[in-house]
Amino acid sequence: MLFVMKCLLLLAISGVLRGQGAPPVVTALPVKLPPSVAERLSPDDRVLFDKLMRVGLEAAWAAVTSEGFPQCFINELHPLNTGRRMVGRARTIRYLPNRKDLRDKTYSQGPQLNYRSAEEAQPGDVLVFDAGGETHSTVSGAITTTRLVMRGGSGMLVDGCMRDVPDLAAMPISIYLRCGHASSVSPILMSLDYQVPVRIGSVTVIPGDILIGEDHGVLVIPSSIVDKVLDKAMAHDEQEEFQRYLLLHGEPIYGVYPELNEANRKKFEEFKKQKK
Amino acid sequence: MLFVMKCLLLLAISGVLRGQGAPPVVTALPVKLPPSVAERLSPDDRVLFDKLMRVGLEAAWAAVTSEGFPQCFINELHPLNTGRRMVGRARTIRYLPNRKDLRDKTYSQGPQLNYRSAEEAQPGDVLVFDAGGETHSTVSGAITTTRLVMRGGSGMLVDGCMRDVPDLAAMPISIYLRCGHASSVSPILMSLDYQVPVRIGSVTVIPGDILIGEDHGVLVIPSSIVDKVLDKAMAHDEQEEFQRYLLLHGEPIYGVYPELNEANRKKFEEFKKQKK
Amino acid sequence: MLFVMKCLLLLAISGVLRGQGAPPVVTALPVKLPPSVAERLSPDDRVLFDKLMRVGLEAAWAAVTSEGFPQCFINELHPLNTGRRMVGRARTIRYLPNRKDLRDKTYSQGPQLNYRSAEEAQPGDVLVFDAGGETHSTVSGAITTTRLVMRGGSGMLVDGCMRDVPDLAAMPISIYLRCGHASSVSPILMSLDYQVPVRIGSVTVIPGDILIGEDHGVLVIPSSIVDKVLDKAMAHDEQEEFQRYLLLHGEPIYGVYPELNEANRKKFEEFKKQKK
Amino acid sequence: MLFVMKCLLLLAISGVLRGQGAPPVVTALPVKLPPSVAERLSPDDRVLFDKLMRVGLEAAWAAVTSEGFPQCFINELHPLNTGRRMVGRARTIRYLPNRKDLRDKTYSQGPQLNYRSAEEAQPGDVLVFDAGGETHSTVSGAITTTRLVMRGGSGMLVDGCMRDVPDLAAMPISIYLRCGHASSVSPILMSLDYQVPVRIGSVTVIPGDILIGEDHGVLVIPSSIVDKVLDKAMAHDEQEEFQRYLLLHGEPIYGVYPELNEANRKKFEEFKKQKK
Amino acid sequence: MLFVMKCLLLLAISGVLRGQGAPPVVTALPVKLPPSVAERLSPDDRVLFDKLMRVGLEAAWAAVTSEGFPQCFINELHPLNTGRRMVGRARTIRYLPNRKDLRDKTYSQGPQLNYRSAEEAQPGDVLVFDAGGETHSTVSGAITTTRLVMRGGSGMLVDGCMRDVPDLAAMPISIYLRCGHASSVSPILMSLDYQVPVRIGSVTVIPGDILIGEDHGVLVIPSSIVDKVLDKAMAHDEQEEFQRYLLLHGEPIYGVYPELNEANRKKFEEFKKQKK
Amino acid sequence: MLFVMKCLLLLAISGVLRGQGAPPVVTALPVKLPPSVAERLSPDDRVLFDKLMRVGLEAAWAAVTSEGFPQCFINELHPLNTGRRMVGRARTIRYLPNRKDLRDKTYSQGPQLNYRSAEEAQPGDVLVFDAGGETHSTVSGAITTTRLVMRGGSGMLVDGCMRDVPDLAAMPISIYLRCGHASSVSPILMSLDYQVPVRIGSVTVIPGDILIGEDHGVLVIPSSIVDKVLDKAMAHDEQEEFQRYLLLHGEPIYGVYPELNEANRKKFEEFKKQKK
Repeated sequence: MLFVMKCLLLLAISGVLRGQGAPPVVTALPVKLPPSVAERLSPDDRVLFDKLMRVGLEAAWAAVTSEGFPQCFINELHPLNTGRRMVGRARTIRYLPNRKDLRDKTYSQGPQLNYRSAEEAQPGDVLVFDAGGETHSTVSGAITTTRLVMRGGSGMLVDGCMRDVPDLAAMPISIYLRCGHASSVSPILMSLDYQVPVRIGSVTVIPGDILIGEDHGVLVIPSSIVDKVLDKAMAHDEQEEFQRYLLLHGEPIYGVYPELNEANRKKFEEFKKQKK
Repeated sequence: MLFVMKCLLLLAISGVLRGQGAPPVVTALPVKLPPSVAERLSPDDRVLFDKLMRVGLEAAWAAVTSEGFPQCFINELHPLNTGRRMVGRARTIRYLPNRKDLRDKTYSQGPQLNYRSAEEAQPGDVLVFDAGGETHSTVSGAITTTRLVMRGGSGMLVDGCMRDVPDLAAMPISIYLRCGHASSVSPILMSLDYQVPVRIGSVTVIPGDILIGEDHGVLVIPSSIVDKVLDKAMAHDEQEEFQRYLLLHGEPIYGVYPELNEANRKKFEEFKKQKK
Repeated sequence: MLFVMKCLLLLAISGVLRGQGAPPVVTALPVKLPPSVAERLSPDDRVLFDKLMRVGLEAAWAAVTSEGFPQCFINELHPLNTGRRMVGRARTIRYLPNRKDLRDKTYSQGPQLNYRSAEEAQPGDVLVFDAGGETHSTVSGAITTTRLVMRGGSGMLVDGCMRDVPDLAAMPISIYLRCGHASSVSPILMSLDYQVPVRIGSVTVIPGDILIGEDHGVLVIPSSIVDKVLDKAMAHDEQEEFQRYLLLHGEPIYGVYPELNEANRKKFEEFKKQKK
Repeated sequence: MLFVMKCLLLLAISGVLRGQGAPPVVTALPVKLPPSVAERLSPDDRVLFDKLMRVGLEAAWAAVTSEGFPQCFINELHPLNTGRRMVGRARTIRYLPNRKDLRDKTYSQGPQLNYRSAEEAQPGDVLVFDAGGETHSTVSGAITTTRLVMRGGSGMLVDGCMRDVPDLAAMPISIYLRCGHASSVSPILMSLDYQVPVRIGSVTVIPGDILIGEDHGVLVIPSSIVDKVLDKAMAHDEQEEFQRYLLLHGEPIYGVYPELNEANRKKFEEFKKQKK
Repeated sequence: MLFVMKCLLLLAISGVLRGQGAPPVVTALPVKLPPSVAERLSPDDRVLFDKLMRVGLEAAWAAVTSEGFPQCFINELHPLNTGRRMVGRARTIRYLPNRKDLRDKTYSQGPQLNYRSAEEAQPGDVLVFDAGGETHSTVSGAITTTRLVMRGGSGMLVDGCMRDVPDLAAMPISIYLRCGHASSVSPILMSLDYQVPVRIGSVTVIPGDILIGEDHGVLVIPSSIVDKVLDKAMAHDEQEEFQRYLLLHGEPIYGVYPELNEANRKKFEEFKKQKK
Repeated sequence: MLFVMKCLLLLAISGVLRGQGAPPVVTALPVKLPPSVAERLSPDDRVLFDKLMRVGLEAAWAAVTSEGFPQCFINELHPLNTGRRMVGRARTIRYLPNRKDLRDKTYSQGPQLNYRSAEEAQPGDVLVFDAGGETHSTVSGAITTTRLVMRGGSGMLVDGCMRDVPDLAAMPISIYLRCGHASSVSPILMSLDYQVPVRIGSVTVIPGDILIGEDHGVLVIPSSIVDKVLDKAMAHDEQEEFQRYLLLHGEPIYGVYPELNEANRKKFEEFKKQKK
């Protein structure tokens, strides 16, 4: 549901329902980008991220799926904080189980990829770590993530685990992970590949993908279709806003949802006109 | 523990312990039914639900078990919100993995059962969805649940997953589920049976069962024994209230719990008289 | 990170960064021992527990590991409350699946071990229950834990489950467990051994071990090395505090972390002098 | 692959390859229906079951999927014996966790459904037990299954477990299950519904479905499409037989599989003619 | 089912059914103790083990349960070989996750417990290793087990894993385990306690318990009730033998199983007389 | 244990033990390479593979670990056949969850990688498929594997699943996998990377690694250390052969294993001389 509209809708309803007691709350509070991200975004990204913060996640899921990408939602990880929304652009890193020969070769060629990815992150980036679901060794921690925050990083998506969890939870950044651990990377894992396709839960993420995360998971949107997805989804949101409005006025669900009946469809057309 | 008594007890203790620093908090805050439920209940149900909101969950478990129903507690699902108590009456729906022939036949006979069950819900009802633990396809979402709230629905118990999780978490309704997902129902599941016995976690739930849910799970009480269970459990709660009182005054656990010794039993009799 | 320092650091930064907007929050709020524990500790333990409340968990993990104890972190359990820190000394209890002959023999020799361990707990103790990961029968509940609180107990670490979860969550004590259940102990488990080595998740805990728990897990420190671990870890924390300070001023991660470069190492020496 | 053809093919190849050493074995031995089933089948079923015993499982999967039933393969259970093929017609039974009220009511209305389903089984039937994946209580055992064998029963598909496993493994019947246990049904489960749609693994099975099982799982074919599926699949098998023939003669995979190139397609047409 | 009787029964049936084709095989082949065990047993144990090799596992389960021990069957482990029966007397060893201090202390006091238990094993003993389900470090291997075989050891029950699996599978000994691994003990585990109660799967095993294992799991019989259990179970087996006999002659299950009807009960009495 | 020696040892023992009954079998039967592999190997590989077929897997594990590669054993997969030994050289393929954009791009650049890897396989190669543990979509099947067999391929290591399982099980090739399925690749997965480092279970495999598999798992040996590993391991095997010999003659384990005592060490030196 469009979050800006939610506020308008709630005001509208409160007038309509005056005298009947407050209507029940049926939508989450609107959320906004943390300043550490918002203030660093490019002008174009401000427009894009503003939409990403408002679009309904499920409407966007439907649009992505209808474009031919049904394997697009990650619900195997857990958010460190609830009540936030993560939006951003994927920057991917792949970890593998440690082995000395490969590790020595890779690490001699440059910094470990958790440092490098934090340092190279662009405003609005989400670091995406594929660690194969490992839960007994971490991929990164609070100090490296501090650098990510300073760079305008928006989030982390970790199919594995992180250390320094309480500090991470306090940061203005959204983090999804399997679980936490106190370990450093080295006992079990090593970073290997940078900006390659990776597997997170049951979804493939590639560099540049657009991500939207809520409490229950993260939607992966190929960047080539993001505009189309947002247009479709926001039109859908508008109808859902109206459907909610009808239900909050006591209408039965038949004729309202999932499809509006003839009479309600006309009302919806008027509703849309009034909003302009 | 009886929640109303909890308040009295805390007041009482605060007098007794004056001068010694505040006693530690050892009981959860009392919780109450949301207005969207409370205001719609029938007079009989107001009495019943009032007791269900106050009775100790563990005392009720012991009573249900002693009546011959040891498989009565569901701890395989997770509550969307902590610090709430769900009470209500089961209205069951069974989902199965999608197959075209059965789906076409069933859906041609009437609305999908998430819509129907929301529309037909009576005040205080809990929709109980058996989706076999499926975690990659949902059974329902926020708009349908808005209708449930408007009907006075009290909760949802989903052995599967739901979409629109942040909106659901904001609603005045208690929801237990495996996890969330952004998917619609259709890719994997279909609704099939309505008001039949279902399996939720490791417990059978039948239509009309009385449910009490806290953060750690949901107790299933056959409606035929609910009065007996409440009587037994509330008597038990009264003793536990007194046992807590003794412990908060520094008594050792031997002689207090699980059984009162002779001396404490006498004090308990006086305690009960004073309360009247 | 040292929690007292965190406050100083945040003040310092706020001065330095004046005019640039507030720096992002990158550390968790400091936490302190609940009065029910703090007021009962021996003078020696006050000193020890004060350090345990401030030391960085990950720094301590590194120190424990470097002392030859790499299997020292438990992340298989979940905290009942987030945002707390558990510190304490292990008092262990071992549960096994019920069998009548052994149960009768054991229970005839004295009280069940959840009662006994609560009663004998010393200020700052953490009860450690090895129930083999059992999730359908509890090991203890709120009333017994009330006694533990009155004794100055600091926490519970349960490889199994507990009943009365909302009450437990309200108590000034930290609890880690697999999940909750409403059951009593008896249908599936029995307590058997007291103050023996036990397995919690993938770590061996022995009586007297020092425990530090945060949201993501619990570090187990053999008591014989706790002073050495704290010294090492706190020195490490000081450097991390400085590294964070540099990053919050916009320095790139290279040269700052994981190792300070030559220039930054000199600044660190000055930083340490200024703090004295 | 058509099993009868396999034998012909192997003979053919052995001639062609004379002088070069034996070709590697690349197909499983043909299997046949046990006499206890074969001798009791109706004439129509003899024709049907003969095809079901010969058709390639993967070819049939492709045909079922292309008919609009992609959720048709159960690989969550394990066969008691390898090297067998199960074919048959589903007769379904649904178990739920035990509860006294429902059990008393149901069991007073007739025999438990494991007895009834064995007694009523028709030749070629497969008993399909949905026990929700329960692994600590069985649904049936060897004596009841002896009756099933005497009735001409062809197999059992159990999303749960069975007792008397060594005896079952010796019987001329194919059994798929989660695991075995020594328990009777009663401690945890009860039989409830007969000949209703059930969930086995991630597939819905309805009475009358046609089942084909190999070592790695069981294909579920709606009876309404079984003829179409067999025709499609057997045509496909014929091509695969030819593709294997080419590969065994040393041709590279390109041009042979998954699609035949122009030249090989012509050879295939001749191959088909020669077989007639 | 009594294995000796099985042979008689099959002979009997073959006469009765002459002219009708062979009856289906519905019982497993009888199995016997390997000579390495049988030849070393004491005279008393020969009598006992002979019964243990013949008694029906499920009948014995029912008897153990009716004696008040419902948690008596382990089905969480896998046998290395199928088609064997393990019988023996438990000799228990407890492993815990490695920690240097405890390991050094324990190992300085005597040999590791896998060596000691193999060396001290008595004929007919089963080594029972509780390794907490660990699957990435073994508890013992083929050479130590060779010594166990030479001592007359009958089996191993390992809640963890073993190395040298192919060699172990070739030995005349029954082994149940989680899985195999090539690792030695030392990277993750250490042996700690000898001849103490342990947890295997969901069952407590104590030294001296009598164990019967088939392909689907292991029954644990407290030694104090083993005679009673065998008497009860063997009487039950005799009835099941007769019930099978009736079913193999084509009788319907009603009236035969689970309870014999009046007419069949009389036939059973005669059947028992004839056998004497 | 060296397999060739096993035969000698068994002969030797049979002489020594004459008159005492046959010694128990304590070693697995020797296994050999299938002709389809053996006949195609290069002369150098014949020497290497001959050693790989004989070396003790656990001795090799110890050598690999001592060279600094402790994460070298895969026990998360299951062999299709027991009683075989897989040896070979890794040829790796990486699968990811399907997504249309990446799939179209990759598949337009050449054949799918299961075809390509089978076609390009060199004698003795093992195809190593990293499919992230996926169990509902396969990576390849019997026809493609037929080509692999014709190329002299030695095995397949699949962190995912395969179709046509009975045919695969009949082939002269060793296959390890999560489980089987009837599905083709396309519904869920796509092949993406060829000859890159991959994760199989908890081990990183790179192209060219040497693999040894037995029933319980697969050892991964970096090719750079294979000669050193074989030398170390075979020396170790020789000692284990002698230790077994002593135990089979009735010596106690102390003084024999894990270390030979002084007296036995001398006998071992003589034993080695006699063998030459």
